Amino acid sequence: MRVLDLSKLDISPDDTCDIRITVETDSECDKYPAKQHARKVAAKLGVRDGLIYLVGKATINWGDSDQPRPFRQRRYFYYLSGVEEADCYLTYDIRNDLLTLYVPNFSLQHAIWMGPTLTVDEARLRYDADRFRYFAALRGDLNAWVDQYNKDSPIYILHSTQKPEISSEGLLLDDTSLIPAMNAAREVKDEYEIRMIRKANEVSALAHRNILENIHRMSNEGEIEGLFLDTCVSHGSKNQSYEIIAGSGPNAAVLHYVKNDEDFNERQLVCLDAGAEWNCYASDVTRTIPLGKDWPSAHAKDIYAIVEEMQEECIKRVRPGLRFRDLQELAHVIAIKGLQRLGVLKIGTVEEIRQSGASSIFFPHGLGHHVGLEVHDVSAQPITANGHWPREFVPEMSTPLLQEGMVITIEPGIYFNRLALENARRLPLAKYIDLDKAEQYIPLGGVRIEDDLLVTSTGYENLTTAPKGKEMLEIIRGHRE
Amino acid sequence: MRVLDLSKLDISPDDTCDIRITVETDSECDKYPAKQHARKVAAKLGVRDGLIYLVGKATINWGDSDQPRPFRQRRYFYYLSGVEEADCYLTYDIRNDLLTLYVPNFSLQHAIWMGPTLTVDEARLRYDADRFRYFAALRGDLNAWVDQYNKDSPIYILHSTQKPEISSEGLLLDDTSLIPAMNAAREVKDEYEIRMIRKANEVSALAHRNILENIHRMSNEGEIEGLFLDTCVSHGSKNQSYEIIAGSGPNAAVLHYVKNDEDFNERQLVCLDAGAEWNCYASDVTRTIPLGKDWPSAHAKDIYAIVEEMQEECIKRVRPGLRFRDLQELAHVIAIKGLQRLGVLKIGTVEEIRQSGASSIFFPHGLGHHVGLEVHDVSAQPITANGHWPREFVPEMSTPLLQEGMVITIEPGIYFNRLALENARRLPLAKYIDLDKAEQYIPLGGVRIEDDLLVTSTGYENLTTAPKGKEMLEIIRGHRE
Repeated sequence: MRVLDLSKLDISPDDTCDIRITVETDSECDKYPAKQHARKVAAKLGVRDGLIYLVGKATINWGDSDQPRPFRQRRYFYYLSGVEEADCYLTYDIRNDLLTLYVPNFSLQHAIWMGPTLTVDEARLRYDADRFRYFAALRGDLNAWVDQYNKDSPIYILHSTQKPEISSEGLLLDDTSLIPAMNAAREVKDEYEIRMIRKANEVSALAHRNILENIHRMSNEGEIEGLFLDTCVSHGSKNQSYEIIAGSGPNAAVLHYVKNDEDFNERQLVCLDAGAEWNCYASDVTRTIPLGKDWPSAHAKDIYAIVEEMQEECIKRVRPGLRFRDLQELAHVIAIKGLQRLGVLKIGTVEEIRQSGASSIFFPHGLGHHVGLEVHDVSAQPITANGHWPREFVPEMSTPLLQEGMVITIEPGIYFNRLALENARRLPLAKYIDLDKAEQYIPLGGVRIEDDLLVTSTGYENLTTAPKGKEMLEIIRGHRE
Repeated sequence: MRVLDLSKLDISPDDTCDIRITVETDSECDKYPAKQHARKVAAKLGVRDGLIYLVGKATINWGDSDQPRPFRQRRYFYYLSGVEEADCYLTYDIRNDLLTLYVPNFSLQHAIWMGPTLTVDEARLRYDADRFRYFAALRGDLNAWVDQYNKDSPIYILHSTQKPEISSEGLLLDDTSLIPAMNAAREVKDEYEIRMIRKANEVSALAHRNILENIHRMSNEGEIEGLFLDTCVSHGSKNQSYEIIAGSGPNAAVLHYVKNDEDFNERQLVCLDAGAEWNCYASDVTRTIPLGKDWPSAHAKDIYAIVEEMQEECIKRVRPGLRFRDLQELAHVIAIKGLQRLGVLKIGTVEEIRQSGASSIFFPHGLGHHVGLEVHDVSAQPITANGHWPREFVPEMSTPLLQEGMVITIEPGIYFNRLALENARRLPLAKYIDLDKAEQYIPLGGVRIEDDLLVTSTGYENLTTAPKGKEMLEIIRGHRE
């Protein structure tokens, strides 16, 4: 919805006339719904006036270098703008419901060297804001707003380091309310955002499939990283949502292994955790792929089956109102029973073992997290009490429930990390673990399977379409022959 | 050379014994020559005591994110360490010729999540320093040095923001001498560094060749970027020396075009400026590749021939003692004569046109630069009076001469940038340009050819082996058929 300025129509008060107004709605031209997001943030702030002031990511070189650091737009800025260009600013005047985007001043030198920056006319065509202005106007606009409103209404900023560059004397600033409000706003995704995450997942699926089709001719983790990048970039995903993790054998047990430079040799599997980004939105996808002549090895089959069961049992329970933490506990219960069957965990009650933390030696991370503009997206509260981190590091808090429109990962894993097992030896929970048996699995590394789930009104939709399980094995088999 | 601590041998003063000492020299185990670099920097500083203190790149997340920013080691730190790991420190005690590397303290949590950090024993095997210590020892070591020497001898740091974290009261610091000394030291490369640049060029050559072999099946700039990345990463070059530039048609006239997301459609060529990095050393390679059904187009052939002549004539003159600026002027002369033949520049004396700046509209950047740890590497002075920038922006200075062991690019180019031509219309130099004729070349974009040259005692060695010219055309032809 746009507010029309009727004063600009050529109508005198005495006229009698018939006006037909055609309004181009935002959805028709498929702009990023920045204005709607601005209103949502204002609602979460719970205020009726004030000015939100956001600084977009600047062009910055590496230290002591003339080469630019990779550019990544600030996510809070993107959420209120949809702009991925550098050196922009925005303001949202809450009382007047006025979103203004500031683009860089024109520079011929910049245009010849780096390409032209956005003009206000281009910006108007591409983005959903009320006003489009050059940077040169920013300071004057801010001062005008301050003169009129700042006595009672603050300027909301993310950090004290992002103050507007105007005289700060007597300025009423609020640098604490905006981040929680934006985190709360970003927790539930709208239709546009879901579309972006779906698209990111489509590109990831292509890339994962490409790896499966070519894994038989590869001998080093670097080849996986290379082909994954190629597929994503060739299909328009210039950025990854996070650093590619392609850990073969014991490297699969290093949760964020990113060196990706070792030969497979006789290793039994590779854990590939890699997701394309689409218009700043993430996908987060992990597949664990069997390697070697006699694939899948008996050990790989054993562990894959447990993790597959953990994932399937958790996924099918996803629905609004669920405590995600209950899923996390269910995953541990399935892991414990599975590891007991293999003799890695000793016989005892499942609850005793779970409480002892013994299963956390093998499944040390959270079952999942939000996905959105960040791969570990923000929210009012983390969906697990412990998120990705061991529970002793995070204070107890009221556990939030799943809501329609959230996008979350379900990513169980079982790992045999030598250092974690050596450390476990010294802990009371060691009595539940057959450490000799566990050590036999160290060469395997570990297994993780991860999908992105959209919480729908009645349950869930799995946004991740990369092949896994039986389908994955068939693709590998088909291309080896 | 290592100083042996004979006190650790089990010898009493009364012993008569026959000692055979075997010293493992640095060159035998092929470590990065950090110690030699430290001595070179001390020599350039021209002092006999003081402590060089360098802070390696820390692990840092993107702002408002839990995802790490891509890691790139600080080049000054690498030059004195050869260490590409995060969160390290080093000191070089000039008087005692003592280079000490500090590695991060061990953390189990870090080891399980990110992989183990370096131990001092691993560091000792991999790096060329005298002492290897954990971070925990840094502060104490610094205080001990300060107590003993700092009254007369400063601590040399790069920037005032990189002070050592010890009590700064009365500390004698020098934050101005180190950068010029290190720039001077890095200007001439040693055998080890040349080997790294050569290796980077080998990977780049593989990647450029791969593009030539596959260009016929591509339709978008993104596919070039993707396959280039794949080839480099698969062959062990995880990082690019700089952002890939793959500009087709008019995008070839934007010198640092990096969006790389447009379709070729009917465009006549793509300018691919992309180089792999090898152990932090750069390669810098540009090839301009013909596109389209009727390739190379007549316009592409015309411009390619001029740029090829500019490059060949300049390369063959490279030798110690040459003023690089003279090459730059020669390149302009060849460009002017070539553009006169095409009717883009009007008839007039070459010198008049060159002085007017008219040729800079088509060849707006420097002929080359140093290559090393940076793609535009540091040196005591830039090799061109104007470097990569138009001459009016750089003050006149004494022009340096080429020296044996320098590695430089020779990268002439001719471009038809619409904005540059529109701007030229308003300048006095417009009288030398047939702007209607020039505008006919705008769809072509531009041509750049770039190689990395090692200055040898008698001339040069071309380190860049990526196919160009006739060889390039034959590869394309061979794979289209």
